[in-house]
Amino acid sequence: MPRSNNTILLSDQELSLRLTPIVDMMRNDEIDAAIISDNANIFYLTGRVIDGYLLIDSIDGKMWAFVRRPSDMTGPSTLFIRKPEDIPVIATENGIIIGAKVALERENTSWSACERLAKVFEPREICNIDGIIRRARAVKTPAEIKLIAASGIRQTEVYRKIPALYQPGMSDIDLQIEIERQLRMAGCLGQFRIAGDSMELFMANILTGDNADNPTPYDFAMGGHGAHPSLPVGADGSIIKRGHTVMVDANGNFTGYMTDMTRVFALGKIADEAVRAHECSRRICHTLADEARPGAEAKKLYERAIEIVREENLEEYFMGHRQHAGFIGHGLGIQINESPVIAPRSRDILQVGNVIALEPKFVIPGTGAVGIENTYVVTDDGPMKCLTNAPEEILAL
Amino acid sequence: MPRSNNTILLSDQELSLRLTPIVDMMRNDEIDAAIISDNANIFYLTGRVIDGYLLIDSIDGKMWAFVRRPSDMTGPSTLFIRKPEDIPVIATENGIIIGAKVALERENTSWSACERLAKVFEPREICNIDGIIRRARAVKTPAEIKLIAASGIRQTEVYRKIPALYQPGMSDIDLQIEIERQLRMAGCLGQFRIAGDSMELFMANILTGDNADNPTPYDFAMGGHGAHPSLPVGADGSIIKRGHTVMVDANGNFTGYMTDMTRVFALGKIADEAVRAHECSRRICHTLADEARPGAEAKKLYERAIEIVREENLEEYFMGHRQHAGFIGHGLGIQINESPVIAPRSRDILQVGNVIALEPKFVIPGTGAVGIENTYVVTDDGPMKCLTNAPEEILAL
Repeated sequence: MPRSNNTILLSDQELSLRLTPIVDMMRNDEIDAAIISDNANIFYLTGRVIDGYLLIDSIDGKMWAFVRRPSDMTGPSTLFIRKPEDIPVIATENGIIIGAKVALERENTSWSACERLAKVFEPREICNIDGIIRRARAVKTPAEIKLIAASGIRQTEVYRKIPALYQPGMSDIDLQIEIERQLRMAGCLGQFRIAGDSMELFMANILTGDNADNPTPYDFAMGGHGAHPSLPVGADGSIIKRGHTVMVDANGNFTGYMTDMTRVFALGKIADEAVRAHECSRRICHTLADEARPGAEAKKLYERAIEIVREENLEEYFMGHRQHAGFIGHGLGIQINESPVIAPRSRDILQVGNVIALEPKFVIPGTGAVGIENTYVVTDDGPMKCLTNAPEEILAL
Repeated sequence: MPRSNNTILLSDQELSLRLTPIVDMMRNDEIDAAIISDNANIFYLTGRVIDGYLLIDSIDGKMWAFVRRPSDMTGPSTLFIRKPEDIPVIATENGIIIGAKVALERENTSWSACERLAKVFEPREICNIDGIIRRARAVKTPAEIKLIAASGIRQTEVYRKIPALYQPGMSDIDLQIEIERQLRMAGCLGQFRIAGDSMELFMANILTGDNADNPTPYDFAMGGHGAHPSLPVGADGSIIKRGHTVMVDANGNFTGYMTDMTRVFALGKIADEAVRAHECSRRICHTLADEARPGAEAKKLYERAIEIVREENLEEYFMGHRQHAGFIGHGLGIQINESPVIAPRSRDILQVGNVIALEPKFVIPGTGAVGIENTYVVTDDGPMKCLTNAPEEILAL
């Protein structure tokens, strides 16, 4: 990892690739300045996490870092503050003019923090920057795609080891612990960044047998009872049994950017219906990967998936059985839930550089969860390119 | 774990113990209703995480759950909604009267979510509930203390195994991975809940040698460079060397409630100064544990610690060397950063049932971090009771 103390770890060219679309959208909305303090957004715009605020000035297209911590940051655009109230003072001292309309991360920052910042920038007009940043972050730069692809390679290597990790008598949690260890040994950072405050997951969602049919409060594609009511999702201590599947959806964050991949394993022979549903999931992924060209509507891709599920008479089991998820795919990168969203009412239109996880999954009562998930990048001249290349068939444990 | 579908997993008596102080404080501030959607607060008030909103009605002292997911929740106070706008409608249908002043979690919920809720409850007056909930949660019930103590016992068992996990040539990350696995095998849930959005940590902060002196952007007592700039804290891949310490501060969440414990290990003989600082940390913990009686001022405890550090001429190294932390202790339970805070400008007064982690630590250049951290509960008739009882001396790896 870089040991530079520069606040901006990105090259000038890379920063410009990320900043320019944001500045253009700000100008379009007549927003003069944006204040960024969300860790994911700071990582996007600097290549590291700092405690402080980035000020994007759309008037001259520049970005400044007002750093609270760490104290050893350097670089020409780095200024130090103790509290947000210092920003306008330090800005003036450095000849930085903050315009009349300031955007805050109103979807990603607490009401109290936004109110405090609004006071800091009084009497300026205050608006929201999150939609703009989300749209910018949805289109990955080549450097970002490289980092995501690197995560995919390492995640794939770990997934290949999963059958060898299984020992007879293991519970889903026992197997998860061994997968976690292999991921960490391969360089997985562990951190699983989710936008918003309501979703929580630790390292992986591993589901065996009918636990896959237990509903969760979280907005994930699959549920599971979890090990404790304080974290009600995923593995619940069920012993892995013959005729049951084990669905593994584990953390792919090796580079600050993550891939999302799901594979299914099974102990002994499983029901034909489950195998058929698994093949249907693969068919959906391959069909959608081919149709997801720039300009494609996200909601049409969702409809295409539903069409295939109907052809195969598997609606009852699709995206859950007792509780159904409302999407089959999602953007990802720094966080697991970025744009675009592949859902019935999505207004997203695919663009070159979108990175999308497709996860058409089924829950078959008596067997468990089946289906695959892959992370793809939208290209300019063909089908989406798959970044998660572990074998797709159901593998024997 | 309980397999009940009741939204409220707490007994009536336990719910009353948690709810009554909140209702009393609400009445005192003339707040008629509070809307709770933060996962940690929902877990506090129900014993589980749901997707939805709790409505605390201070007029009749009751709590209602407006559940979005999971769909299989039951119980007399459980009502279902699809979106927050349904709350007043469903409330009216069920004869629930929402008063004129409604409090939201303005410090813990995004500006956008608060604005949406404020609209839902128009034209009612809107205020903040976070201070009240934080004060209530600072005083743990006997049942909560039992859960924290249970975490302490399991965390202690894992810490005892640490010397046996070390293998020559290991890096800090290698050792951390083996500690993570032992924690998980002992039932650690992995999830490490931190209030607010700015702090991040994966499972443990493990520091060896001079990495302890690398500043972090996060508001933890200790720093560390981390494995990647996207998560700049803790272990950085340094090989554990003779004459260096290894400070282990690892996840103690086994029950939805966590303990916080730090212990120091060393390879070979370490500098006398480091041993002296470690003993000073123990002395501070024992002195403060004895003086932290109900009614004690948190800031006086901080001052007492500083006094001891000065007596021993160790100010230069206390709570960091290149970058210093501004506190020596913190409340904890569901989250790692609860009230009270043991810091110079803290206004907190200790109460029976406070659970506090004390972590007077030192960074000795050329050796690494030393000092201990224990989790204590404030009792009504004597010194604080320690819940983390692994051996306190520096143990050989």
